[in-house]
Amino acid sequence: MIRNDIKSLAAYHVPESAGLIKLDAMENPFTLPDVLRKAWAERLAQVEINRYPDAGMLALRGKIAARAGVEAGQVLIGNGSDEIIQMLLLAMNPGACVVPTPTFVMYDLISRWLKRPVATVPLDKDFSLNADNLLQVCAREKAEIVFLACPNNPTGNLWPEETIRQIAVNFNGLLIIDEAYGPFSERTHTHLIASNVMVLRTFSKLGWAGLRLGYLLGDAENIGHLNKVRMPYNINALTQTSAAFLLDHFAVFEQQAAAICAERERVMAAFKSMDGIQAFPSQTNFILIRVADADVVFDKLKAAGILIKNMHGAGGLLANCLRITIGTRDENDAVLTALREIMA
Amino acid sequence: MIRNDIKSLAAYHVPESAGLIKLDAMENPFTLPDVLRKAWAERLAQVEINRYPDAGMLALRGKIAARAGVEAGQVLIGNGSDEIIQMLLLAMNPGACVVPTPTFVMYDLISRWLKRPVATVPLDKDFSLNADNLLQVCAREKAEIVFLACPNNPTGNLWPEETIRQIAVNFNGLLIIDEAYGPFSERTHTHLIASNVMVLRTFSKLGWAGLRLGYLLGDAENIGHLNKVRMPYNINALTQTSAAFLLDHFAVFEQQAAAICAERERVMAAFKSMDGIQAFPSQTNFILIRVADADVVFDKLKAAGILIKNMHGAGGLLANCLRITIGTRDENDAVLTALREIMA
Repeated sequence: MIRNDIKSLAAYHVPESAGLIKLDAMENPFTLPDVLRKAWAERLAQVEINRYPDAGMLALRGKIAARAGVEAGQVLIGNGSDEIIQMLLLAMNPGACVVPTPTFVMYDLISRWLKRPVATVPLDKDFSLNADNLLQVCAREKAEIVFLACPNNPTGNLWPEETIRQIAVNFNGLLIIDEAYGPFSERTHTHLIASNVMVLRTFSKLGWAGLRLGYLLGDAENIGHLNKVRMPYNINALTQTSAAFLLDHFAVFEQQAAAICAERERVMAAFKSMDGIQAFPSQTNFILIRVADADVVFDKLKAAGILIKNMHGAGGLLANCLRITIGTRDENDAVLTALREIMA
Repeated sequence: MIRNDIKSLAAYHVPESAGLIKLDAMENPFTLPDVLRKAWAERLAQVEINRYPDAGMLALRGKIAARAGVEAGQVLIGNGSDEIIQMLLLAMNPGACVVPTPTFVMYDLISRWLKRPVATVPLDKDFSLNADNLLQVCAREKAEIVFLACPNNPTGNLWPEETIRQIAVNFNGLLIIDEAYGPFSERTHTHLIASNVMVLRTFSKLGWAGLRLGYLLGDAENIGHLNKVRMPYNINALTQTSAAFLLDHFAVFEQQAAAICAERERVMAAFKSMDGIQAFPSQTNFILIRVADADVVFDKLKAAGILIKNMHGAGGLLANCLRITIGTRDENDAVLTALREIMA
């Protein structure tokens, strides 16, 4: 009864992390400050959990919109970016989804679920993206939607604005600029929003991964139509209350993001001083490195109590690459100490 | 760029309810007892919101399974039943979705999103379901999946077990028995679970509508495959923590459900004593009634400060029907007082 192509998928695997320094998932390492935690819990305790959540979420959308410099009607809210990616892939006319490779895996996976063809555009060796190549693939594959993670995961780099702009102007379908790592990047793209350009964001990397709240910014007409394939009560009452609270204390999380960026620069400088490590530029809260044997380094880090992400299995440009999330200063020092020993 | 059939959908409409006695959405009217609320908020305050939620949820699935008398691997968790309905309609082989009419609207709506054809089987005038008719439609339409809401919404009745069993045995595709209103019903159906029969449930009507937690019980192999089209982190950390808490205090919510059932019988007896009201049997937390002019009665109730659901617009068997959720004793008395005045 179940589709054979679904049956043949592997289930999403999340590695066991108990007892390890967890630097595999781009989480913000800072727990909620105690004073905020107390205020947050008090708000949650007021939630009337026996009532359905606000279905339209106009107030929350307005709060998000105000911060992004758009209108409430230009905001679509989902359970993480994942649910929004699914709404987009479901609502668009037939036609391929085009993505660079390597990039965030969910664009491809959810396209497969929805039987939408996917075409990939290989990045160059330095992870740069050739806009002409991408536009050619779009034309050849009759593309309907393009996802560009800006900055890109798992490579960490941010393509030049000119590249994004060239694609935005010349692609006839819908361009989604995924800013999951925008809080750690030198540039955002809300100024490019147009009838065929939208910006996708999440609170996950900002310190609220447990909340699963993503949002899409676009023109009001498209957002209004996409809203029709949103489950009416998709965002539960606790998430809505938490998100409103988070937005009232946004500076705390922006400061944490700034601290993470500073740590990233410190770790990057240390990586560059080590023999046997090629560290790629990052505008995210992680750094991709290449080593001689990623499997060995991954295992040795794990033995040292540190869990990172081994990208080697993806092959291609990611051969012998490891993705290391930026943690607290102590966690990062543990990584550097362990790596110095491993590479010695 | 967006599909025309999506564009032409109406957005899901939730009526404004501020200041009204809210009896339109089958919510449990009882707020969380203070002592439970305090304990619950303390648990939420411990959540490490900067970390992704548990993706596999084996512990929570085990807790749900233990209560349902199945194994953890037989439980799939979603954001409300809605998300699970979408996973099912997405993962199944092509073929029609067959549902009785009238029934819960999301089976049809989500099928349309996913371009799965829908065929409906009209209920009889007393809302009974003819299994032979349904099986004939399944054969004719090459059905792949059937949803039976047991009890049914918006009619409130529960079809005989023999009807369900006849369909389970003779239908080649997947039968989903939706027990959203199971907590108020004389019968549940976990004993019918088989390779082609699953049971869908939700915590929404039990007092946790704000949480949006639904689950599907089936055989472990099918559940394992369906799990592959579940967003890896679909259930956020607050919902997971709340659900574990709820299950530790389940007796409280079962007692509330029993109180609602007792109130339902009291309200039903009162409806039956009123001229001009036809009240249909209910095994749910609502009662469907038919009046001479549903629009007039709906408006007058609203003017009296009571919001119910006017089903008249759906037409057919629901012409001049109103759906009234069972509230607290005081809320129900307000309905009865207002209706006595309106019908006088």
